[in-house]
Amino acid sequence: MIQFYSPDILTTRTLPEEDARHCLRVLRKSVGDIVEVTDGKGRRYKCRLMSDNPRKATVEIVESIDVAQSWHTDITIAVAPTKNMDRMEWLVEKLTEIGVNRIVPLLCRHSERKEIKVDRLQRIAVSAMKQSLKATVPDIWPMTPFKRAVAELTADARYIAYCDPSIPRKLLASEYEPQCGSCVVFIGPEGDFDEEEIKLAIGDGYQPVSLGDSRLRTETAALCACDTIHIINQRNK
Amino acid sequence: MIQFYSPDILTTRTLPEEDARHCLRVLRKSVGDIVEVTDGKGRRYKCRLMSDNPRKATVEIVESIDVAQSWHTDITIAVAPTKNMDRMEWLVEKLTEIGVNRIVPLLCRHSERKEIKVDRLQRIAVSAMKQSLKATVPDIWPMTPFKRAVAELTADARYIAYCDPSIPRKLLASEYEPQCGSCVVFIGPEGDFDEEEIKLAIGDGYQPVSLGDSRLRTETAALCACDTIHIINQRNK
Repeated sequence: MIQFYSPDILTTRTLPEEDARHCLRVLRKSVGDIVEVTDGKGRRYKCRLMSDNPRKATVEIVESIDVAQSWHTDITIAVAPTKNMDRMEWLVEKLTEIGVNRIVPLLCRHSERKEIKVDRLQRIAVSAMKQSLKATVPDIWPMTPFKRAVAELTADARYIAYCDPSIPRKLLASEYEPQCGSCVVFIGPEGDFDEEEIKLAIGDGYQPVSLGDSRLRTETAALCACDTIHIINQRNK
Repeated sequence: MIQFYSPDILTTRTLPEEDARHCLRVLRKSVGDIVEVTDGKGRRYKCRLMSDNPRKATVEIVESIDVAQSWHTDITIAVAPTKNMDRMEWLVEKLTEIGVNRIVPLLCRHSERKEIKVDRLQRIAVSAMKQSLKATVPDIWPMTPFKRAVAELTADARYIAYCDPSIPRKLLASEYEPQCGSCVVFIGPEGDFDEEEIKLAIGDGYQPVSLGDSRLRTETAALCACDTIHIINQRNK
């Protein structure tokens, strides 16, 4: 199955140009063919192609399907973007594939990257959503200062993962309560969170955690944290 | 901490040229300084630099440390290499970071990639081992035909993960027995395993598994499978 993406399909009844070209030129669909289109907000539409003009490929909606999210915990990964942007883009693709609700780029004291292009990350998330047959694209926030993220992100369980062994922490894999309603995991930059940041979060109710004995790169840590939640939920259904 | 890699340090007492240049030119170490060197076989050596010639940087071994692996299950990931080699290289890096003992590139009926450069993958694994402060580099096999891999890979638990919903399977996250001695997980190519391959493996005692409801790319599936084992082991220590 190939999914197209048209966030405003309900009002425009049109495929965006890039998707239209793919549909008509690569897949050689023609007027009358049925194509599947998601709005990235949880719905998938079976549509009939009404025009084969790649600049304005109009459709008629035949059926509207509510695509339930396959996981039940609302997951936020708040992560300091890596210096190397490829690694951050890779992370957005992988988090979207395995399932995440929100990605919050954190601006931390030791952040090596202080700016990001949210548009580009969103395009990558849309592409991963289509490829993995989901119908909801994760919400990607703009760069958010650490303190503001601590204050604004609310959830049933909030964790801050770090490397500094001098501040006690437990394994996320043992601390996480299966099937919790919502959770947030903070992942620091290449140089780790600053001690004051860790203490601020803990003071605000964040649980201090580790992801195991391996020294993981930032993007690997963020993916493993998200995966930990899915795997423990799967095992404790 | 920076680790250098010299597989034959015990016999040569010399850093390979690339590591020597990094040590002398980038880190500006000089004669008498202590550097840490791993042999990639589970040992780390504290060494004193005896020469600052980057072509022949000799060392004296001051201390030899046995670096125990931080996980207790011997993990083999047997995976059909992706068409796009970048994705396979990324996978080798990430598996090495989170911890894997053996990577077996599988040649399957639907494989789009039929050849790989093992040397290049080994270099990536060495670099990820150094970066994640491990002292053992995973064993990377040459491309191995599916049938031969089924026959040759022995372990306490063997799993084959696939997408085809017509052949019953259970979640790896629920099937995996914590702290098992050794395990193998098979991950198929972009077009999934062929039905005959799945049946052959099951006939040989492999447990049929799924990695959840998301359609994952090959490299994501392979990483999530390895991570599942680590996370369930961590939770059930």
